[in-house]
Amino acid sequence: MNVLEAYGHGGDLLTAADRFGMEPGQFLDFSANINPLGMPDSVREMLLASLSAVLRYPDPGHRQFRRALAQRLQLPKEWLLPANGAAEAMALAILGLQPQTVGVIYPCFSEYAELSEQFGATVIGCYGKEENGYKADSAELYRLFEQADLVFVGSPNNPTGILYEPQELLQMADWTAQTDTWLVVDEAFLDFVEESRQFTLASRLERFPRVILLRSMTKMYAIPGLRLGYAIAQPDAIAKMRAKQVSWSVNALALLAGELCLQEHEYERRTRSLVARERAGLVAFIRGELGWKVWPGEANFLLLRSPEGLPAAQLQERLGKKGVLIRSCAMYPGLTAHDVRIAVRGPEDNARLIAALREVHSEGSGER
Amino acid sequence: MNVLEAYGHGGDLLTAADRFGMEPGQFLDFSANINPLGMPDSVREMLLASLSAVLRYPDPGHRQFRRALAQRLQLPKEWLLPANGAAEAMALAILGLQPQTVGVIYPCFSEYAELSEQFGATVIGCYGKEENGYKADSAELYRLFEQADLVFVGSPNNPTGILYEPQELLQMADWTAQTDTWLVVDEAFLDFVEESRQFTLASRLERFPRVILLRSMTKMYAIPGLRLGYAIAQPDAIAKMRAKQVSWSVNALALLAGELCLQEHEYERRTRSLVARERAGLVAFIRGELGWKVWPGEANFLLLRSPEGLPAAQLQERLGKKGVLIRSCAMYPGLTAHDVRIAVRGPEDNARLIAALREVHSEGSGER
Repeated sequence: MNVLEAYGHGGDLLTAADRFGMEPGQFLDFSANINPLGMPDSVREMLLASLSAVLRYPDPGHRQFRRALAQRLQLPKEWLLPANGAAEAMALAILGLQPQTVGVIYPCFSEYAELSEQFGATVIGCYGKEENGYKADSAELYRLFEQADLVFVGSPNNPTGILYEPQELLQMADWTAQTDTWLVVDEAFLDFVEESRQFTLASRLERFPRVILLRSMTKMYAIPGLRLGYAIAQPDAIAKMRAKQVSWSVNALALLAGELCLQEHEYERRTRSLVARERAGLVAFIRGELGWKVWPGEANFLLLRSPEGLPAAQLQERLGKKGVLIRSCAMYPGLTAHDVRIAVRGPEDNARLIAALREVHSEGSGER
Repeated sequence: MNVLEAYGHGGDLLTAADRFGMEPGQFLDFSANINPLGMPDSVREMLLASLSAVLRYPDPGHRQFRRALAQRLQLPKEWLLPANGAAEAMALAILGLQPQTVGVIYPCFSEYAELSEQFGATVIGCYGKEENGYKADSAELYRLFEQADLVFVGSPNNPTGILYEPQELLQMADWTAQTDTWLVVDEAFLDFVEESRQFTLASRLERFPRVILLRSMTKMYAIPGLRLGYAIAQPDAIAKMRAKQVSWSVNALALLAGELCLQEHEYERRTRSLVARERAGLVAFIRGELGWKVWPGEANFLLLRSPEGLPAAQLQERLGKKGVLIRSCAMYPGLTAHDVRIAVRGPEDNARLIAALREVHSEGSGER
């Protein structure tokens, strides 16, 4: 059975269409973690009204978007670098800071290791402990900081959805100075976390010249096809990353959309409350009715473990035939052949996922 | 007087707006070389109808666009690499092939040297001869191939608009084997050249494993804000470049637009005939009425030399105040403080440029 993650990620509707003999648009996609509300109305209206922006080069200095970002984050614009998705920001961190050794905590987003190897770094990792939501213990983590030139940490982490606590992040930030190590905190899914739990080092970066925060705007604002992300760090680090960025890498529509998204406070609140409610419903169903293990993630996705006799690949296959896509996590170092990740979507979609899971569950295990 | 090319390129309407106290949309922009017909109707309609493409990740394998490209170019898809603009394709050539020394022929597109230095290569150059349309002579060019690991050649070259002849390109392609040098031919503006003069090595690459062709789709199809380009080369070279590409770097709307653009044969013909006619009109005016020197460019722009007493910076300033932007070429190595580049636009716009140039010319020289 070949995997849906032919390119190492979820959301690959073309591969799914090939495999299950449906049109790409027919699937209910729980394999990518995008805001179920869809893009903000303001962005949709802008895209319809501002097509002529396509006729001109994007601003190579990202000036208007960067100004809006500086205002929203209350940081000087020299601390900010817009990017062609958070993936480009990760690449720029590696290209700009040139770590020889990059440390990761397994399981984590595969691009940390992919991009590091792509640009010539050696990847070393430690394994998070299952009982601790796959967070590494402090001694192992410190060893990672000692050995690596740059450490990637996801908070909340992908695919677990587990957040690092304030004291854990502050501890790591302190280690950057002690060990001469860069810390790159990937906050791509932080927007989905309950506000009181959204801890970030953003307002403390003054103390930490070796800490870089990465943000994605494609998940919260449902614009993964447009690509937009950014980095936050002290101006020296930003300048090093910027020096490796290709001109016009952020397209004009993404820059315009980004400006509007930054004003969408109410939409963000609605999203968080929807996601919290729906996530709780999914957890209750998976634990209560299916009796499967599910990790207490705080983002817009959940990591769960299918039971004996129903490995991730088979679960994915059986749901796929019903038009429901999930992310197999079998290829994540540190996870098992039974681990899958599902996005938290809107009520109707989640009801369809629940119905499909219920069917698969009642059919019992075994290939059919 | 600070320059409009704050970021090293034309088309920077924000800097122009700041400097001349107008809105960015009020300028007539002859500083960027974009198809005056605007984007094809098919692309405009698709953008309005396909906004939901923004809600999904772009295909990381660019499969549909690459298939369409393979069909149009009659080349296997392993020979093709879609990119986030030709600029990304240039960066990938440098990152993928890792030349220590990059050769350029001055004057040329500034990104060849910029990107090379950005990614750690040393840039060496030879100077084209003015009387030969700034093409290097054969002996100097051969020396460049001997010394460099990779040579960038624009055909037609930017900012001169001068094409290399078939025998010149074939000669360089032969040198790649003799000297173990990569040849990257930048064909970003080749689409605008009269069809009978559109010489490319594309159909001969079987013989040349060290030749890479770069194409831009943003100029002919007027979508610089969307970003789309591609590379053509043997599969080994494409794989090396692809290995340095960041996931999802080409956005979803660009991929969809690209598929449609490849079917726009009639629009391409109309564009070429419009550009040829308008270019001839501009040349006649500049040579005949102004008596200024203008190079016989074959693309959708012209390089010209302003007269004594009216350096490029002053000409740019005086036209800018009238809402007309041109590209100063004073900062191009090999050119003079009197060289400027103007785009060839549609009849009405060109008439406005002619009127503005006529005014400046009749006002005489000197700051006012």
